[in-house]
Amino acid sequence: MSDTPNPIGTPTISFLTDYGLVDEFVGVCRSVIRQLAPSTMVIDVSHDIAAHDVRAGSLALVRSVQYLADGVVLAIVDPGVGTLRRAIAVEAGPMTFVGPDNGLMAPAVAMLGGARRAVHLTNDEFHLSAPGPTFAGRDIFAPVAAQLTNGVSILELGPEIDPAGLVPGVIPLTRTEDGAVHAEVLWVDRFGNAQLNVDPDEIAAMGDTVSLEFAGTTRTAHRADTFAEIKTGSIGLVVDSYGMVAVCLDRRPAATDLGLGSGVAVTLRSPDR
Amino acid sequence: MSDTPNPIGTPTISFLTDYGLVDEFVGVCRSVIRQLAPSTMVIDVSHDIAAHDVRAGSLALVRSVQYLADGVVLAIVDPGVGTLRRAIAVEAGPMTFVGPDNGLMAPAVAMLGGARRAVHLTNDEFHLSAPGPTFAGRDIFAPVAAQLTNGVSILELGPEIDPAGLVPGVIPLTRTEDGAVHAEVLWVDRFGNAQLNVDPDEIAAMGDTVSLEFAGTTRTAHRADTFAEIKTGSIGLVVDSYGMVAVCLDRRPAATDLGLGSGVAVTLRSPDR
Amino acid sequence: MSDTPNPIGTPTISFLTDYGLVDEFVGVCRSVIRQLAPSTMVIDVSHDIAAHDVRAGSLALVRSVQYLADGVVLAIVDPGVGTLRRAIAVEAGPMTFVGPDNGLMAPAVAMLGGARRAVHLTNDEFHLSAPGPTFAGRDIFAPVAAQLTNGVSILELGPEIDPAGLVPGVIPLTRTEDGAVHAEVLWVDRFGNAQLNVDPDEIAAMGDTVSLEFAGTTRTAHRADTFAEIKTGSIGLVVDSYGMVAVCLDRRPAATDLGLGSGVAVTLRSPDR
Repeated sequence: MSDTPNPIGTPTISFLTDYGLVDEFVGVCRSVIRQLAPSTMVIDVSHDIAAHDVRAGSLALVRSVQYLADGVVLAIVDPGVGTLRRAIAVEAGPMTFVGPDNGLMAPAVAMLGGARRAVHLTNDEFHLSAPGPTFAGRDIFAPVAAQLTNGVSILELGPEIDPAGLVPGVIPLTRTEDGAVHAEVLWVDRFGNAQLNVDPDEIAAMGDTVSLEFAGTTRTAHRADTFAEIKTGSIGLVVDSYGMVAVCLDRRPAATDLGLGSGVAVTLRSPDR
Repeated sequence: MSDTPNPIGTPTISFLTDYGLVDEFVGVCRSVIRQLAPSTMVIDVSHDIAAHDVRAGSLALVRSVQYLADGVVLAIVDPGVGTLRRAIAVEAGPMTFVGPDNGLMAPAVAMLGGARRAVHLTNDEFHLSAPGPTFAGRDIFAPVAAQLTNGVSILELGPEIDPAGLVPGVIPLTRTEDGAVHAEVLWVDRFGNAQLNVDPDEIAAMGDTVSLEFAGTTRTAHRADTFAEIKTGSIGLVVDSYGMVAVCLDRRPAATDLGLGSGVAVTLRSPDR
Repeated sequence: MSDTPNPIGTPTISFLTDYGLVDEFVGVCRSVIRQLAPSTMVIDVSHDIAAHDVRAGSLALVRSVQYLADGVVLAIVDPGVGTLRRAIAVEAGPMTFVGPDNGLMAPAVAMLGGARRAVHLTNDEFHLSAPGPTFAGRDIFAPVAAQLTNGVSILELGPEIDPAGLVPGVIPLTRTEDGAVHAEVLWVDRFGNAQLNVDPDEIAAMGDTVSLEFAGTTRTAHRADTFAEIKTGSIGLVVDSYGMVAVCLDRRPAATDLGLGSGVAVTLRSPDR
């Protein structure tokens, strides 16, 4: 959020995983950080990204990143752990991202203006030794994140790699054809609102009423400024608090009631076309 | 818990919402606080209040409030977000409460002796600007809570309002008629114990055995000092650790086994009447 | 992880319970600690141990303990609360454990070389007074843990007791007979991997292919160094990141797909015997 260093000088790690909070994985990673960098503050972004869902993790990061405290972003959704996928650190904006090179961090890095510098985390002097195969979060990513907040230079962590060669992100783009916007559901939040990959500008010309086609049905939706403005039984199209278009009902979960899960294709057009 | 300032001088925000821990909402609010008030400690009270359940949130607050560290209580269960409901800050006891004016904070405020002072949070100098409609937690409540811990006066946050005009809480009272106490289930905890809105004094005259009527059935319950004292297959009435009467089974979830969900009406009377 | 004191001098409490994160129990215990020991850092190991599951809690502790920051371990899975089970504090390695004497902490204490000293927490000068029956976490264990990090000596908390008389842990041992290893599932993690109570040395002589008998069926499993090495449709035996043998599928939950829940008996043998 700012280019000035944290005024009290204690660094921050923002932490996102698909580890869940039932097992002790998150607690162990936090304990490793506490041992190596005792004054670093860890802020949990989310640990309940669906297991192995790199896309959902990358979307949560891109929604959050402009609000995170300057410092290190530790992000682990890593279905390829133990394979040839690289462990990396990437500098972008006021952040250093630490995690797997599988597209998870790419959209957030892009939102901050792209990678300035990236390294492959091969210097095991900064890793923990594992009793069995590596638990990458505990043994590589958390210790490296901690050491970065201790002032270790990214260049000590491994050889520099070309940012252009990093695995790209996977956020789907809309397609506009004959005035219709072919979109999809990006994210369903706690309250059942279905965020689309649609910028309000893309549908500005459609007016207050928009025809939605999805899952073989056609429904009419009405633009609304707030959830509370949506009439009972009516479908609302709201610009959500991230600036994206979302399909919503008033105090009802639109995603469940309408069948709009993450990834469902939705076509938006003017009802008179 | 005390009227003396925190001995090490770093302030505390106690944080309760219905945001859940799957989405990044809590992490983003914590990040906003971290940026604005880096030395403030945030303690999570709960973030898994059922979505939009103002009553459940208010009960969790009233159960907790006497144990919370002096400072700011940030409480957000806000089904009316974006409507005319007011965003407020309220001083009571050693606490300043920040949240929506919908009754959520009222019972905890009452338990601390009532509101000394309240303001309407209209001064947007202390808010974040939103990319779309306001995400009130991120854009208003969290920044205001952070600024209060920075020493900003409540009077800078907006115009003072009459505490007598705040929306009241909704904790149901018992009704006593012909020696019977008409009560209801306030809360079902993790272990399935069903806390009633009954003070032990209200049933002191009934003796060790009490007749319970609920959901069309009548069951006999036995007073017990601890869970372990309840015989297998028998229903216990225990004064719980909050000083309220609860319906319990030994190592079994009473609420599930007996059908005693939150809000269910229960009549208690002497079995011989 | 180390015998040297925490370099910045602020103490750590590692905190594990079966309280869940829906109720405010964890938040209240953290608030009590914050009031009594404001500079102490609390690290959550897990709070979603299944309700009353002492074995699952003890296994999570023993998996974590070598990674926890030196200091206090506050562990509460306590089905016998309010009965004669003792509340205790136990010193082992660089840690002081605080919790119920029911075997929960015993395996972690043993892993650190056994108890050097133990006390019965009967000195209520260090407890909170309860409005009803004791909520042991809030009223005894959390305040005692906080006071230990304030420098209160364990000997002030109550009379010393003989460590040999503490309730032992319940981690099951394997049995080897005619070259077959009779084992059981210790733990199913977030990703559905089924960890067995088997050290890799116990099956080293069996070679790359191992016959698994469980729940009335026999399946063939293949040793693999990583999850990604396991072929689709094939069962893998992997040494997991804790150094134990686990039954795994590639990006599928082995426990669910194969019926290998916690506690299921599994016999491992060479396929040609």
